[in-house]
Amino acid sequence: MRHYPGLGVANKTPANSPSIWMFGRLRAVSTRNLWGWGDLEAAVSLDETQGRVEPFFGPSEVESASAPRVPRSKVEVPAELKGFASTADLERAAHAMGKGYPDRVRGLRGDFSAAPDLVVTPTNERELTLTLEIAERERLSVTPFGGGSSVVGGVEPKLGANHRGSLSLDLAKLGRLLELDEVSQVARLEAGVFGPALEQQLGARGFTLRHYPQSFEFSTLGGWIATRAGGHFATVLTHIDDFVESVRMVTPRGLFETKRFPSSGAGVDPNRLVIGSEGTLGVITEAWMRVRPRPTFRAGASIHFENYERAVEATRAIAQSGLSPSNCRLLDSQEAMINGVTFDGSSVLVLGFESADHPLDAWIDRAVALAESFGGTCPRGKTSGSRPGDAGESWRASFLKGPYLQDAMIRLGIVADTFETACTWTAFPALYAAVTEAMRAGLEQICGGGVVTCRFTHVYPDGPAPYFTFLGRAKKGAELEQWAEIKKIAGDALAKAGGTITHHHAVGRTHRPWYDNERPDLFATSLRAVKRELDPAGVLNPGVLID
Amino acid sequence: MRHYPGLGVANKTPANSPSIWMFGRLRAVSTRNLWGWGDLEAAVSLDETQGRVEPFFGPSEVESASAPRVPRSKVEVPAELKGFASTADLERAAHAMGKGYPDRVRGLRGDFSAAPDLVVTPTNERELTLTLEIAERERLSVTPFGGGSSVVGGVEPKLGANHRGSLSLDLAKLGRLLELDEVSQVARLEAGVFGPALEQQLGARGFTLRHYPQSFEFSTLGGWIATRAGGHFATVLTHIDDFVESVRMVTPRGLFETKRFPSSGAGVDPNRLVIGSEGTLGVITEAWMRVRPRPTFRAGASIHFENYERAVEATRAIAQSGLSPSNCRLLDSQEAMINGVTFDGSSVLVLGFESADHPLDAWIDRAVALAESFGGTCPRGKTSGSRPGDAGESWRASFLKGPYLQDAMIRLGIVADTFETACTWTAFPALYAAVTEAMRAGLEQICGGGVVTCRFTHVYPDGPAPYFTFLGRAKKGAELEQWAEIKKIAGDALAKAGGTITHHHAVGRTHRPWYDNERPDLFATSLRAVKRELDPAGVLNPGVLID
Repeated sequence: MRHYPGLGVANKTPANSPSIWMFGRLRAVSTRNLWGWGDLEAAVSLDETQGRVEPFFGPSEVESASAPRVPRSKVEVPAELKGFASTADLERAAHAMGKGYPDRVRGLRGDFSAAPDLVVTPTNERELTLTLEIAERERLSVTPFGGGSSVVGGVEPKLGANHRGSLSLDLAKLGRLLELDEVSQVARLEAGVFGPALEQQLGARGFTLRHYPQSFEFSTLGGWIATRAGGHFATVLTHIDDFVESVRMVTPRGLFETKRFPSSGAGVDPNRLVIGSEGTLGVITEAWMRVRPRPTFRAGASIHFENYERAVEATRAIAQSGLSPSNCRLLDSQEAMINGVTFDGSSVLVLGFESADHPLDAWIDRAVALAESFGGTCPRGKTSGSRPGDAGESWRASFLKGPYLQDAMIRLGIVADTFETACTWTAFPALYAAVTEAMRAGLEQICGGGVVTCRFTHVYPDGPAPYFTFLGRAKKGAELEQWAEIKKIAGDALAKAGGTITHHHAVGRTHRPWYDNERPDLFATSLRAVKRELDPAGVLNPGVLID
Repeated sequence: MRHYPGLGVANKTPANSPSIWMFGRLRAVSTRNLWGWGDLEAAVSLDETQGRVEPFFGPSEVESASAPRVPRSKVEVPAELKGFASTADLERAAHAMGKGYPDRVRGLRGDFSAAPDLVVTPTNERELTLTLEIAERERLSVTPFGGGSSVVGGVEPKLGANHRGSLSLDLAKLGRLLELDEVSQVARLEAGVFGPALEQQLGARGFTLRHYPQSFEFSTLGGWIATRAGGHFATVLTHIDDFVESVRMVTPRGLFETKRFPSSGAGVDPNRLVIGSEGTLGVITEAWMRVRPRPTFRAGASIHFENYERAVEATRAIAQSGLSPSNCRLLDSQEAMINGVTFDGSSVLVLGFESADHPLDAWIDRAVALAESFGGTCPRGKTSGSRPGDAGESWRASFLKGPYLQDAMIRLGIVADTFETACTWTAFPALYAAVTEAMRAGLEQICGGGVVTCRFTHVYPDGPAPYFTFLGRAKKGAELEQWAEIKKIAGDALAKAGGTITHHHAVGRTHRPWYDNERPDLFATSLRAVKRELDPAGVLNPGVLID
């Protein structure tokens, strides 16, 4: 048992364990999975998972995790950073990659060659600022690291042209609720706070942020802001963007801090330059976030549709109605089946409303009536009341399981991943047809068959955010190539059909080819110009968003 | 009668007319007021206005408009721009200034010394792009001009360091609805379209934008986007920002066009660099705007409060309730009195809901109940139904009269203006007290007394957008100095109390001192870096937002 500064206690377990390397972090009672998702204790059973994939792929061979191979660090801990920096192998392995499919496959096989040379875990903003100074001086690239849950290569350390080493900058020690303005319902939070710790601290004061990305338990506020994470609310407050009242970012050229205004019309919004900057312009250290009282009223319904096109129309009508449901997730028949919701080929619209102020009967009644007018049926009726059985909460529990399931599938030799987009309602039918068709053909060719499913995670008056899941049989040793081929088919199909390359997974490095085509060239020019000002030595996250 | 390219017909009228210069524009039946607001036909009666100000200021002397003095143009029309450019005096006078208080005072006195050397009115994007090229070559500054309604010096031509003349770039010929996506409810519009023409074209297809800034009749879509105009909706969709799906901007270095996505999480949002750029980075030529069907259900109530603090608390409760009223305007007792709403010292909260989808009884019932729980009373009851008597529409008619009233007051020798901000609910009570106190003391000293009133134009869960009106007696010939002194008192008081210098009037040049303090220094650095890329010769709007 060894102690790692900033990460707590690490344990080495027998080599035949499913995950041979693990260590506790933040919560003493849990142990983190080094190659895969989250806590080892919460892993999804392989038997259960095999039961789910067996109908599609037949029997599987189970792969166990290999011992991690971590390259030697190329640098010494600079004197100024002693006490909050480490070159220990496990520490560096834990900061080598995100949690995308290729990251997990590499990790499972013990390939931690992406590990940074140095992990720095500042305990305050002064140490963080100092770290940026030292990185410039020592020619080290800096990768801001929140929870490390990026699925787009956003936290993998890379070297810029003139760098002699890499540094992962872990924000985990900046995890406090600093102030709560109960009147205006805004909380000042440190950026390194993880989802559960954030909700725990707010909850003790009667408030909640209610931002639940799928990575909620293993990602941080700063990461959410830097990547424009998508959260709990299916309408209106869909991205973390909408919760940010003001933000504080340390850049290599000093502090970039916006003022607390509920809104302003004073020129270009400075918050919006920080939000989505993916660690390329500075390191977010704090933000004032809009919070709210916990909901006390809830209403919900699950509406079944025989016809998917009509289900989409119904969802559009609700998205354009002004009713603003907090949950409005349409599962296509494949998605409903794979999630065990229906098995009769029907699509399912999961609707929910919540409020801390008023009963929601009028809201759910109208939304269900709208859905029914498009041929939907509500076999289990609707619920509305003060704290009724909370379909949303159980949906969330199952939702948070998703990445664990992906781990199990990877071990069972399944190429399993998701991708997501947003497009107009007008573009959606053709996009859905083209993407599912291209993916089915691609999976047939690359994996000898597979499954593609779709749900809406968020909806807007002008279009949905469709989220696709695909599964195919992996060819052992060729998984990364298979995945890259499928990913290219998906990205190309989205772009061709008018979808963005990401609604909330961010760009990182994985999405760069499509992102580069999707953004205006002059915007890339603009971003590079800003980076030259804020990060003139180019230490921050080389290759993410821009070169 | 002379013909002015791009402006229609101009008429010279007798020198003793209230406004001696006028010309028709866009609507053949109306004549524009050269020095003051809008159409001459819609001017507010001087007698009526005198009746309103008499209780405060006693009898007034009426000032008539002087003949405009326009300096000679320093440039010839470049050969390439012939056919859509003019150096005619009246054309240039009409592009000399915005409609702020100092602009109108100067205009009333015939001072059009700010006139550009050249007015260019391109009829398509090719001519507009050519204009930017010629401006660079000829070293002319370029001021994008929509409706010319800026109250912050945003459309007044200025020369940069190396300029030999100025060019006002009028978008009035780009006024078409180009495409309507009825399924996704998004319309592609040219940026020079004025409010009424926009609503007329959309209305013919059954849609509406429902963005009504006070300048609605005399401002353009492009101007709204460039200045982040505030509109009709008091909550959620408060700024034009929220309606922009994608935008097209011509810069001196080429086209900056974003793609049509209902939302995206792909890096920093490129739309947000265009929105609020105030003509400094490029000229907005088109946008895809989210539209909606006309509302068919409305509900409303006017709630009276004896106690303003309790009224503010009630408004906050409604803003934080999730009910999202379309109208939520709290008038303080002075504002209620000066608008003839109440005369008993009570404050009034004007509440409205609207929908094209569902009756709003549950919404208005809960909002009124909330207000009543804070001591509000509803002497005239509430209304709810399908197209009931529309309090919102009559409010809007009176609202659109505001700038005309200001004209009349100016002619009656009253320093009359407004300023606005946004702050947290926590900051508001002290801000309100400090601003009204500073203004009363300032008006006493500078004008020998005066009136300050306040209403909320928009509200957010974390704070209101208070809008202040002030009146004081002008000292003939010293109005501009008086106004500048009062404006400084207002801006300083807002900044000190934690308010932004503008919630929706934009920065222009007038608000620069406070804006420069309010934005992060590194954001100014960033904006300048972007400008160097998009407008390397610095032709666009020198001195607006940045130097």
